[in-house]
Amino acid sequence: NYSRMLRSVEGLSAAGEWEAFSKLLPPLQNKRVLDLGCGFGWHCRYVMEQQAASVTGVDLSEKMLEKAHELNSGPGITYRQQAIEDIAFEDGIFDVVISSLALHYVEHYDVVCRKVFNCLAEGGSFVFSIEHPVFTARAAQDWYYDEAGNRLHWPVDHYQGEGRRVTRFLGNDVIKYHRTVATLLNGLLAAGFRITQVEEPPPSPSVLEKYPEMKDELRRPIFLLVAAVKP
Amino acid sequence: NYSRMLRSVEGLSAAGEWEAFSKLLPPLQNKRVLDLGCGFGWHCRYVMEQQAASVTGVDLSEKMLEKAHELNSGPGITYRQQAIEDIAFEDGIFDVVISSLALHYVEHYDVVCRKVFNCLAEGGSFVFSIEHPVFTARAAQDWYYDEAGNRLHWPVDHYQGEGRRVTRFLGNDVIKYHRTVATLLNGLLAAGFRITQVEEPPPSPSVLEKYPEMKDELRRPIFLLVAAVKP
Repeated sequence: NYSRMLRSVEGLSAAGEWEAFSKLLPPLQNKRVLDLGCGFGWHCRYVMEQQAASVTGVDLSEKMLEKAHELNSGPGITYRQQAIEDIAFEDGIFDVVISSLALHYVEHYDVVCRKVFNCLAEGGSFVFSIEHPVFTARAAQDWYYDEAGNRLHWPVDHYQGEGRRVTRFLGNDVIKYHRTVATLLNGLLAAGFRITQVEEPPPSPSVLEKYPEMKDELRRPIFLLVAAVKP
Repeated sequence: NYSRMLRSVEGLSAAGEWEAFSKLLPPLQNKRVLDLGCGFGWHCRYVMEQQAASVTGVDLSEKMLEKAHELNSGPGITYRQQAIEDIAFEDGIFDVVISSLALHYVEHYDVVCRKVFNCLAEGGSFVFSIEHPVFTARAAQDWYYDEAGNRLHWPVDHYQGEGRRVTRFLGNDVIKYHRTVATLLNGLLAAGFRITQVEEPPPSPSVLEKYPEMKDELRRPIFLLVAAVKP
């Protein structure tokens, strides 16, 4: 069910995010990579295709990791079942840490920033994408419609009220954590990172041509992407 | 008319912004300061009260500067009538550049970032506030109301469509330029700045107590503040 969604609804959004995300990555050849919230392991596979030395995929979900082993296993790839907040790697053992659309599920973002900083070698990169604070502010996380069902605009509310949001996804409650843009950036800075790029990618022309319904993504920011380095 | 607004409607917002803005400023004693979009010169006066060596206030409006001379002149303060984009100072002659709620009137933000970088000495600071992209995205720049006139939420639209916005203010057309958060931050990074802090300040408890109507500012981000240094 969820895996079908990934290829349909989620897949579309992911398409726009992935193109921008991959542009933020440093060269991966011979790099030791950590993927926080690896899900089905598609990013781990990509990382190894770029000739990384190794990649460790961390995810809390046993089901996701079963699928990751099935779909995306191979030499150099290791999966660990663990909450992102609970990682406890030795200092300086990774060159690149990535996280795609996972950190909005994490309650203690500042802890993650510090842990990522510590497990990175000097000069190492942290690149992540997250659902945009403009997207996560209201628990409903939906457009505002007129009576005919047209999308009038994207409604923002409770922006300054950080914390838990219980949203519905595929008929289930999903818990996310809303944080402001300022909190997301200052958490990196407080951990010692230098921010090198920030993106709120709109769908690319090729995505818009393939999926015309994505044009609504020009109306709001849905993803926030940040690249940072450990100086 | 406009000066009356500053003390009423604008004044309230400015109260919240100023408290956060002043916390981002480095120590100003003996510093050479530039204020871009100085308006009536209140920030220039503040800077000299902090025992800065000098302050140059730049504003395009002759009327604003007349008022600045009248209200906030004194030793060390110089005013120049000029568009922010048109500044042409020698390299490295300022220690601190500030700009309070002016850069959303500027068409060529990247040019300003580069010029500010050049006129700052090494180790110098650039601190600015700007109307938040979530605020400037729609030209209407207003809440979405129900039929009874209650504020339902803050509507966002056209976020990815950067550029000119013609808004109404006190019965006049005012031209602003909408840019995304990513563009605002990447402009600084491309110019060579290191970002040190980002704020989207909600009203402080003291402001909320004094002006209860400001509680709606907890629902949206209205200002974006950035502190950066020239490494």
